Amino acid sequence: MLDQFDPRLDAEFPPVDRQALRARLAPLLPAGGYLDGAEALRAYESDGLPAYRSLPAAVVLPETLEQVRTVMKACAELGVPVVTRGAGTGLSGGALPFPGGVLLVMSKFSKILEIDPVALTARVQPGVRNLAVSEAAAPHGLFYAPDPSSQLACSIGGNVAENAGGVHCLKYGLTVHNILAVQVVTLDGEVLTLGGPAADAAGLDLMALFTGSEGLLGVVTEVLLRLQPLPETTRLILAAFDDVGRAAQAVAAIMAAGVVPAGLEMMDGPALRAAEDFARAGYPKDAAAILLCEIDGQAEDVAEEIERVSALLRESGAAEVRIARDEDERRRFWAGRKGAFPAMGRLAPDYYCIDGTIPRKSLPFVLAEMGRLADVHGLGVANVFHAGDGNLHPLILYDANLDGDLAKAEALGGAILELCVSVGGSITGEHGVGREKINQMCVQFSEAEVNAFHALKAAFDPQGLLNPGKAIPTLARCAEYGGMHVHNGALPFAHLERF
Amino acid sequence: MLDQFDPRLDAEFPPVDRQALRARLAPLLPAGGYLDGAEALRAYESDGLPAYRSLPAAVVLPETLEQVRTVMKACAELGVPVVTRGAGTGLSGGALPFPGGVLLVMSKFSKILEIDPVALTARVQPGVRNLAVSEAAAPHGLFYAPDPSSQLACSIGGNVAENAGGVHCLKYGLTVHNILAVQVVTLDGEVLTLGGPAADAAGLDLMALFTGSEGLLGVVTEVLLRLQPLPETTRLILAAFDDVGRAAQAVAAIMAAGVVPAGLEMMDGPALRAAEDFARAGYPKDAAAILLCEIDGQAEDVAEEIERVSALLRESGAAEVRIARDEDERRRFWAGRKGAFPAMGRLAPDYYCIDGTIPRKSLPFVLAEMGRLADVHGLGVANVFHAGDGNLHPLILYDANLDGDLAKAEALGGAILELCVSVGGSITGEHGVGREKINQMCVQFSEAEVNAFHALKAAFDPQGLLNPGKAIPTLARCAEYGGMHVHNGALPFAHLERF
Repeated sequence: MLDQFDPRLDAEFPPVDRQALRARLAPLLPAGGYLDGAEALRAYESDGLPAYRSLPAAVVLPETLEQVRTVMKACAELGVPVVTRGAGTGLSGGALPFPGGVLLVMSKFSKILEIDPVALTARVQPGVRNLAVSEAAAPHGLFYAPDPSSQLACSIGGNVAENAGGVHCLKYGLTVHNILAVQVVTLDGEVLTLGGPAADAAGLDLMALFTGSEGLLGVVTEVLLRLQPLPETTRLILAAFDDVGRAAQAVAAIMAAGVVPAGLEMMDGPALRAAEDFARAGYPKDAAAILLCEIDGQAEDVAEEIERVSALLRESGAAEVRIARDEDERRRFWAGRKGAFPAMGRLAPDYYCIDGTIPRKSLPFVLAEMGRLADVHGLGVANVFHAGDGNLHPLILYDANLDGDLAKAEALGGAILELCVSVGGSITGEHGVGREKINQMCVQFSEAEVNAFHALKAAFDPQGLLNPGKAIPTLARCAEYGGMHVHNGALPFAHLERF
Repeated sequence: MLDQFDPRLDAEFPPVDRQALRARLAPLLPAGGYLDGAEALRAYESDGLPAYRSLPAAVVLPETLEQVRTVMKACAELGVPVVTRGAGTGLSGGALPFPGGVLLVMSKFSKILEIDPVALTARVQPGVRNLAVSEAAAPHGLFYAPDPSSQLACSIGGNVAENAGGVHCLKYGLTVHNILAVQVVTLDGEVLTLGGPAADAAGLDLMALFTGSEGLLGVVTEVLLRLQPLPETTRLILAAFDDVGRAAQAVAAIMAAGVVPAGLEMMDGPALRAAEDFARAGYPKDAAAILLCEIDGQAEDVAEEIERVSALLRESGAAEVRIARDEDERRRFWAGRKGAFPAMGRLAPDYYCIDGTIPRKSLPFVLAEMGRLADVHGLGVANVFHAGDGNLHPLILYDANLDGDLAKAEALGGAILELCVSVGGSITGEHGVGREKINQMCVQFSEAEVNAFHALKAAFDPQGLLNPGKAIPTLARCAEYGGMHVHNGALPFAHLERF
């Protein structure tokens, strides 16, 4: 999967004249807002997926809407590719620079412009950190629900670009469900307002189209976020299972009972043991899997749901059901989950985090099949994931210093994503396609669907300058990768019934 | 607003050779699936907005996906406009035939294909009636949340095309929040699957783009709906106010307290008195306004919220707060609300139902301003609306037999929608733009935004054959109507702060 970034495969642009680029762009930007020294560029050579690296011709750091507009227009006129970058925490290589192109970094757009406690909204610039919104909203008894695990560092603009999720999106939805409007700048420097503070917007839903568009259509310059009331009470259940399949069935049982937990996470044996050694969370180390189920809301209601979920977990065969005694124990249980990724260092020198979604009912089948695939490829896999919404994060364990191990990890990752597609799932849950999953797009979508993506892209960016080589594969690439997937003709969902 | 349908203004097509059209299309369809007799066409001359009427060259009634594909391809080759129609209950003229074009009626696609109680989904054809989904889901303890007031008759395909709402969308969201995937056929006969059963979909969010696209991009041929667990308990509060502004403030107070009612409806004096005379709901006839606030969920939680909301209503100055004693009284309170539209016949021979949304905090201002506009135009207005999400439905009272009265109603309707835009709202909440609000689109959007809509439309329909003259105005029309609205430059939401 992790082939090196080869722009020739997906897009070709004439080499940039760096002097001319500087002469044209630097005057549009504030002092220090145009960087093209080797050392400065090196700092931006990759995002949160460091397996890919490439160098832009220049990094630009605009501070005003007008600067974004003039930079975009200049790049369009020069025919220079533009990649937009937020905090650079993305895991699919979406903010990987286009070699020799411009990297537009939005980190100076870092103001929270307004919190409106009556409208339950926050108006923010895209460089604002995700967690900073909830911190600013807390005095009003409000919070911003999407909480990717990078929420301390990641920024709202990147969240919009990737349609970010997190533990709480099971109950509160993805980014697209938690924003009301975005202001964007197009390649030709136009400013568009998409969506609005009212419940519905007229015209085509461009706000949803831009959300998750991975920098392919324009640059987000302002966002109106929907805030939620902070729940009165939050409680957490930990359930241990002797069998991973039974844990997966418990997830289905909880959701089918009509309970909507604030979060419903699963960790399998290898993951929970590594996490326990790392974080001393108090997990039962002999379990084959644990579930963490969080319920929030008003106190009485939470108490009742906790009872109901506990009973369902026991009926589903949980060996142990523990309700966090207090806030301290609740935090500890979560600390293990949150430390699971860094804890992987105890299992292997390197890990590769995969992101796919599947319908919940396929969980037992997919977990079993994933184990089989790991054996075939000769690598270990630890599972830590958002079980409630079927968003898997298998962690493939490998050693980059062993010859061929990275290639094995890439092959296994691709196979797991294609397994997700085969049960009616998706190759991304919250990390986006970026550069990483460009080949798997060919498996997910038919030729007609890929053509529809290209037509939409061309409507905003006829020259193909915005984030080239990302998110949408060329048909040539798909042919090279091994042909397009075609849905089962007239009944696109019929294949689900096999599982 | 209700200018007659003048296709020359927005789109021009050569006249159709009716013999050739029949020769080409009729063989593609089952017996009785091609209608072009004068009497048959007359039955389809308008939708739920009968002020507009026009006749298609032919009505086609496909029964299979393949028939939809071949009809679409044939129309594309012939260069004949195609308007898709569901149940024809729409209120913005979206299914008004294009004069001399093809009307594609999806009523034969009327099967519920699958209810999946584990995945909480229903897979249905677009001609299935909205209420039929909830009826089929009820034995599994589930329901389909969007409930437009036409839910007995309207069909899912039309709901998707208009992004339909209803009383319960305050808590459960619009149609776009309650569907997981759509299968669509494009003008060139391609079948696309947009979205999927998993939590997130890869690629650009075409599912959201198609939802609410009013037949401009393709034809919906299958929908995967999200179902919700039926709430254990549902209770209703009626609150009466001596002052409309105070009722509006109570709405803001409830929402700001973090309560999310299942429905929060307002009726003003004229509306509630007409409804009471019509339905004998038990409303206090001397009130200036009433609120109906429904809470659903688990019994204990509902009891607690009912207490909380009652207190908030009293604090906001309600003259009377009544909790429906039993299911019978709850149904009676709703019967008045549901009968409010037909009850208008007691106030005036005709009424014109407007649909706009505003931020909740602007409710008191907009209600007052609307009264002033009604006086200026010399017509009465009764208000019955989804107050919780700021979705207004002013009913303009007029007499079509009085010379000039309809023109006055149209002018007042346009002025009210433009008032909604001026406070940061939208010219549609759930009825769509259709033919009705095409001029107001020029007020809602800037030239760059209208251009973006056209570019997207052209990506799917370069010939402009799908539902021409609807939803997106030409720039020429906007110039004629009186210039484009331009957002306040760099801060598109700043104008909200004025209110």
